[in-house]
Amino acid sequence: MKPVISKISSLLLGTTIATTALLAADVELSKVMKDRGLSEIDVIRAAKTYNPSGVKDEFVVFSSGGQSGQVIVYGVPSMRILKYIGVFTPEPWQGYGYDKDSLEVLRQGNIRGKEINWGDTHHPALSEKDGKYDGKWLAINDKANPRIAIIDLEDFETKQIVPNPVFKSNHGGAFFTPNSEYIIEASQYGAPYDNNYHPIEDYKETYRGGVTMWKFDDKIGRIMPKDSFTIEMPPYNQDLSDAGKGESYGWGFTNSFNTEMYTGGIEVGMPPNEAGMSRNDTDFLHVYNWQKLAEVAKDPKNVKIINDHKIIPMDIAVKNEALFLIPEPKSPHGVDVSPDGKYLIVCGKLDTHASVYDFKKIKEQIDKKEYIGKDPYGIPILDMKKSLHGQAELGLGPLHTQFSPVDGEVYTSLYVDSQVVKWNYKNLKVLDKVNVHYNIGHLAGMEGKSADPQGKYIIALNKLSIDRFQNVGPLHPQNHQLIDISGKSMDLLVDMPLPLGEPHQAVSIRASKLHPKVRYDMGTNTKTGEQHIGKTLAGQERIERNGNHVTIYSTLVRSHINPERITVNKGDKVTLYMTNLERAQDETHGFTINDYNLHTSLEPGETSTFEFTADLEGVFPYYCTEFCSALHLEMMGYLMVKDPNKKYESAQKLKMQTMSPEQLKAEYDKTVSVNTATDAVIQSVVKFLKDNKFGDHKAVADLVTDALDQYGKIPAQKKLSDEAVKAGDMEKAILYENMIWQLMVKTADVGIRAKDTLVKLIATKQSAEAARGEKTFAEGGCNGCHVIGKVSSGPDLTGVLQRHENGEKWVTNFILDPEKMYTDPYVKGMIDFFNLKMPNQHMSEKETKDIIEYLKWVEENANLF
Amino acid sequence: MKPVISKISSLLLGTTIATTALLAADVELSKVMKDRGLSEIDVIRAAKTYNPSGVKDEFVVFSSGGQSGQVIVYGVPSMRILKYIGVFTPEPWQGYGYDKDSLEVLRQGNIRGKEINWGDTHHPALSEKDGKYDGKWLAINDKANPRIAIIDLEDFETKQIVPNPVFKSNHGGAFFTPNSEYIIEASQYGAPYDNNYHPIEDYKETYRGGVTMWKFDDKIGRIMPKDSFTIEMPPYNQDLSDAGKGESYGWGFTNSFNTEMYTGGIEVGMPPNEAGMSRNDTDFLHVYNWQKLAEVAKDPKNVKIINDHKIIPMDIAVKNEALFLIPEPKSPHGVDVSPDGKYLIVCGKLDTHASVYDFKKIKEQIDKKEYIGKDPYGIPILDMKKSLHGQAELGLGPLHTQFSPVDGEVYTSLYVDSQVVKWNYKNLKVLDKVNVHYNIGHLAGMEGKSADPQGKYIIALNKLSIDRFQNVGPLHPQNHQLIDISGKSMDLLVDMPLPLGEPHQAVSIRASKLHPKVRYDMGTNTKTGEQHIGKTLAGQERIERNGNHVTIYSTLVRSHINPERITVNKGDKVTLYMTNLERAQDETHGFTINDYNLHTSLEPGETSTFEFTADLEGVFPYYCTEFCSALHLEMMGYLMVKDPNKKYESAQKLKMQTMSPEQLKAEYDKTVSVNTATDAVIQSVVKFLKDNKFGDHKAVADLVTDALDQYGKIPAQKKLSDEAVKAGDMEKAILYENMIWQLMVKTADVGIRAKDTLVKLIATKQSAEAARGEKTFAEGGCNGCHVIGKVSSGPDLTGVLQRHENGEKWVTNFILDPEKMYTDPYVKGMIDFFNLKMPNQHMSEKETKDIIEYLKWVEENANLF
Repeated sequence: MKPVISKISSLLLGTTIATTALLAADVELSKVMKDRGLSEIDVIRAAKTYNPSGVKDEFVVFSSGGQSGQVIVYGVPSMRILKYIGVFTPEPWQGYGYDKDSLEVLRQGNIRGKEINWGDTHHPALSEKDGKYDGKWLAINDKANPRIAIIDLEDFETKQIVPNPVFKSNHGGAFFTPNSEYIIEASQYGAPYDNNYHPIEDYKETYRGGVTMWKFDDKIGRIMPKDSFTIEMPPYNQDLSDAGKGESYGWGFTNSFNTEMYTGGIEVGMPPNEAGMSRNDTDFLHVYNWQKLAEVAKDPKNVKIINDHKIIPMDIAVKNEALFLIPEPKSPHGVDVSPDGKYLIVCGKLDTHASVYDFKKIKEQIDKKEYIGKDPYGIPILDMKKSLHGQAELGLGPLHTQFSPVDGEVYTSLYVDSQVVKWNYKNLKVLDKVNVHYNIGHLAGMEGKSADPQGKYIIALNKLSIDRFQNVGPLHPQNHQLIDISGKSMDLLVDMPLPLGEPHQAVSIRASKLHPKVRYDMGTNTKTGEQHIGKTLAGQERIERNGNHVTIYSTLVRSHINPERITVNKGDKVTLYMTNLERAQDETHGFTINDYNLHTSLEPGETSTFEFTADLEGVFPYYCTEFCSALHLEMMGYLMVKDPNKKYESAQKLKMQTMSPEQLKAEYDKTVSVNTATDAVIQSVVKFLKDNKFGDHKAVADLVTDALDQYGKIPAQKKLSDEAVKAGDMEKAILYENMIWQLMVKTADVGIRAKDTLVKLIATKQSAEAARGEKTFAEGGCNGCHVIGKVSSGPDLTGVLQRHENGEKWVTNFILDPEKMYTDPYVKGMIDFFNLKMPNQHMSEKETKDIIEYLKWVEENANLF
Repeated sequence: MKPVISKISSLLLGTTIATTALLAADVELSKVMKDRGLSEIDVIRAAKTYNPSGVKDEFVVFSSGGQSGQVIVYGVPSMRILKYIGVFTPEPWQGYGYDKDSLEVLRQGNIRGKEINWGDTHHPALSEKDGKYDGKWLAINDKANPRIAIIDLEDFETKQIVPNPVFKSNHGGAFFTPNSEYIIEASQYGAPYDNNYHPIEDYKETYRGGVTMWKFDDKIGRIMPKDSFTIEMPPYNQDLSDAGKGESYGWGFTNSFNTEMYTGGIEVGMPPNEAGMSRNDTDFLHVYNWQKLAEVAKDPKNVKIINDHKIIPMDIAVKNEALFLIPEPKSPHGVDVSPDGKYLIVCGKLDTHASVYDFKKIKEQIDKKEYIGKDPYGIPILDMKKSLHGQAELGLGPLHTQFSPVDGEVYTSLYVDSQVVKWNYKNLKVLDKVNVHYNIGHLAGMEGKSADPQGKYIIALNKLSIDRFQNVGPLHPQNHQLIDISGKSMDLLVDMPLPLGEPHQAVSIRASKLHPKVRYDMGTNTKTGEQHIGKTLAGQERIERNGNHVTIYSTLVRSHINPERITVNKGDKVTLYMTNLERAQDETHGFTINDYNLHTSLEPGETSTFEFTADLEGVFPYYCTEFCSALHLEMMGYLMVKDPNKKYESAQKLKMQTMSPEQLKAEYDKTVSVNTATDAVIQSVVKFLKDNKFGDHKAVADLVTDALDQYGKIPAQKKLSDEAVKAGDMEKAILYENMIWQLMVKTADVGIRAKDTLVKLIATKQSAEAARGEKTFAEGGCNGCHVIGKVSSGPDLTGVLQRHENGEKWVTNFILDPEKMYTDPYVKGMIDFFNLKMPNQHMSEKETKDIIEYLKWVEENANLF
């Protein structure tokens, strides 16, 4: 505890009087530790990962969601998941894939006309400037159906999906080049580039691997397929990639794991792929000069076009001295370029070593054309030993490496050993190991693969969690474990279950580098960023019919949808445009129509579209699916689909009681007077806000703007009410007065939030004693009778210390022994007034002192209660 | 800190010598607090919510996922999300909706032939026995497309979806009756029961509300639609429900919010629904005797059949004295039955009061037929005041109530005030309030709506999170806040962002009440629980052709798929059965085929099915999508689709280097010798496990079984290798030897995990000093040269305290001043041997003492290193 030392000092100085109270917090902590079986180190770890309410995280992690086809966003060190971003998989909560505009993005991912509604996301990549993350774009690959998607970090939405025209799987993507010029996507399993059948016996001849260099426009955040190209490579099952930087700028690196070109056949008595694909002691690291090849690709003579996409054949790449191979240890998994671009670390998962390649040594051999031979496809092979800086024995199953700000210090995952090893890739010494639970794949350092690694934490992305969590059935969560690397030895802080998907790799960035928006310009198509064709402002709502095509321009705002009734004919084609008119942060409306398999999520300012054929007759409620306000259940309407070939007869009307004109007038008067009273409450809040200069605090000012938005809608409703009164339609007038009350409730809802926020911002900071005093006041039972700021079963205590001479002493004595003062004239008066005697709550002197401190704080902030 | 008190005592006793070291943990905590800006109370809150690695939670919460259509499972108090369960929305990670068997469950949810691929889940319900949760089944509703789903808590999978045949939306479900006899599902928006168009002008006459009582068979966990019925009700927009228990057993309660029967029309100048639907000061609580009505429904004369479903018309229910209305305050949202069933608490969201109804008073009026009138549909209305125990003024926007084990003590959410209020429903006193951030809807107590509420925590399910978390774009997460209710005043412990969906309501259960399985019987269809028609054991893999229908019986096991090549003709109908042969916990395999939009997740023992038409020609890799072992990338094969109308020519063969017989022999020998060496390592682990009686520890024994499973596969491979050698096929022999090595790696992978787990279980518990010593040993740099259990750059320290006379003193002196002992003959010998001098690491006396304690612990457990 922070105050322990000063406490101890005070004890040593002889001020032992208040021991018990001084240690109140320690005693409480001690009790919690005992109850929950926590050790000292557990409490330290808890403190390292706990974020108090409202406190934000230092780092944001983007993790692939594996077979969930999404991206997972979470904070470090709290390890709280902040968002799932729908990427390759429809995500109804976000409306993704359930409204027309987002479906258009999802359908960009069709392959050969097939709709694909999931993905196996593997490697997220953050866009870079000089090898450092710029916080603008995120790219991620789908291994199963080779595609790359782009996510905009202004709104965390997927904006583009680009299928690979020639690969049949991809693993070694996405990786940005250091200035986001290109995104690297390597294939995984060898397959023909065309879409035809080729017998497996012709594997070596007709199946191919490769690396696609996707040209990226980092201004608009889009891949430009026409300016992109693929480097043809042998069918070696290319695996992970990385882009060179600094010294190795312009080069790309991709390793591989089936240079045996084994193709299995377990079903005909052959050993399985796992045996044949890991036979050789070494595989090949592919080294290619993408910068040069980008130039080469500009000449049509240098490229083959397959499926409307440019391919640089191997022989062209070789002829241009832009493609090389270097042996690398058995079945490698990670190739990781150091922050300065001088070294590459390759780990062979079936080898116990990490191999550190020195780019200078590689470059020297290339420059001197010093090859040890060529592979069957004519690609020059460089000497492994001559390319190596050295090797370090790390343990069983080394996979991936992350960098730290300390020169040479790196962290590598050990799959079989289930460990993270800290070592130095320059002097090749192992420094520390920590056990993880269990079977780590990738690991994520803080900006640990950028040119500017931040250190502090490493996250182990474990594949198994077996005994870590409450059993939730045969399908277990994954386990991301946060490891503190700020000390000399690593310290595993906490387990974090991943509830959905198998997160494969994660990248992280300082939260301060992200600048997402909180609302859109009114009427934005968020998928294109442009103004939506269906943008509709208040008052522009309408239903247009053109033959059998019905177009509805609708709006949503707390808490109604306009229109509330839509009638169409069975068979009509319906286009429904919806605009969320809100400007307030977090005021999302959702929208759905019963049975039509449609849902959209409308963030403030967003417009989106449903397009469907009204093929079912009937009555279909629609409603807002977000709990947007107290009246959210009432935010609904009906789609009614008539069969134009049917005759409908009106039902016989039920007899309902009607109100007399007097009753209506009485209800009207009552409603108006409720509104007047409610308005008075609102005005008192407004006065408080103004008196306390809410405009100085942006968070509060935003809320006040929102509250005034709601309040500002009242005059129009009042006008309608008054017109109805004039026209003698009291029913309608009552309803409009009710609407005014609804608007007042919404104003009050936001206004109260604004007031609470302001109070927290402007109240003087509580001392530790005052905070303790507040707790004692509550837990000791004082608040049973005393409510600060208001007379309750006992007097309001605001100002109590001023009320009496020697106020502190007076109150202290009264708390410690109230009976003694029952005859004090003031106390006697109070007893008579409240018909209650202040009981002895048996407070200690220290507790009483804390309460006094709390009351002092109350007096300092009396105007806020 | 736990030891604070004893430390202080020791200080007071005058043993001040070791102050600094004694306080090491405090100093570290103090530093963390300073770095992270934490207060004392923050640390206590951290300790209350932190689970050390591997420590499980006390409670499990099931939260609806809102528009994500899923269920979210998380732990309390750690607030870590453990799983998303796919319910109404396809979930590729779980294979849900992407393989045939799960698609059959999802398609049970079709309505009028329409495929619906999402849901708006609202109210999860746990099955009950005597009103207490039995941990067997979970039911949840879809509001948008009225359906109920059943989830099996043995494997956390959705087993059944039942659409409501007459409703067009539902809100007031799912709620179990006290012995899970029925599940209550109330409609929301009034709509016609049939599927025809009815004009909105006939709303009162032809639109209806209602409550469906779904008969539940709690042995098999399925709704029985034929034994179920719907109670017709007026179109009053029925809202939440609850089942009576104890005194009120046999009764159901459902409230409502549009007894005005307003139908909007904003588009034609009418006030919006929100104004018209909240006009009245009171709405109606519906009180019905489901037990009696279940009998009534058995007589065909008493029911109407609509859409093949039984309806009890209102007049029949009234005639049988089984349906009543009681006024309840304006637009209520929650109706919550007390644990003993004696009281109902209703909160009107547009009223500041909670209304406590006394069931006895209700029953008395019913028994006496004491009605204040009838509604327009002829339903008797009871007197509100006569039904009330009383009302309590709670604040603005009261919604839902949860119970605690303390008599009368309840917790209610206040939407507009953004607070939780603690009050007593018996004496109607408000006890405490706590602010939440922001706009709470439901709240979840621990088993807080069962007959056996547990207290301890309340979770606020907030609708807004605005400023709580790192901004992740205009669409914010939701915020579940954990509140400690064990003290007199509530204490908000932590914010938990909900990353996906708008969780509407949550129910919780003690973790100890759940007993999920970790594997299935081999060949289980997990959706039906029965043996799968496609169950395939090792050796039974085959491809069968019947006309143009190809059926493949395949298996998956670390790390191969059998078969590895499947060739079919374009246009063939393909049925692919897959069985996961694993028995090991958490050894899930995933499976997908490129481009075919198929994915399945196979838990140990599970069989599942793909069914598709091979409509695209080409080569399509398939692979395991779970990182299941070090060889997981090699776990793949090819689906090859030939066009039967095309002629394919063989490619011209590339020239490849081949190995000489001598080279092959040398590779074979090398592979065999690697295997021999690897086996020796495995045997040493096996010996360790046996020596240390692994069988006494279930967790370890399970792992050993798994390891032996892998190891047991070796003889068969050895036989194949030997046969190949005999036949002179050295290539094949090498591959089989490689396969043996793969199996050894898998054995070692699990074996090492078993060993580590066993060591942790059997090592003696470290004292706080020894634990600190271990840390100092690591951080102080000792481990740079000394590795426990092994000679490294310095001697192994196991047994070091025994090696020297007065060992403790000897080692202490050596650590504190090594230079002084360089001439000691033993030390001299070591210096010569290692060519290194022990440096002075400047340890304090206390640190040295801790290290000695650590070394003592090492000696106690010497056999484990």
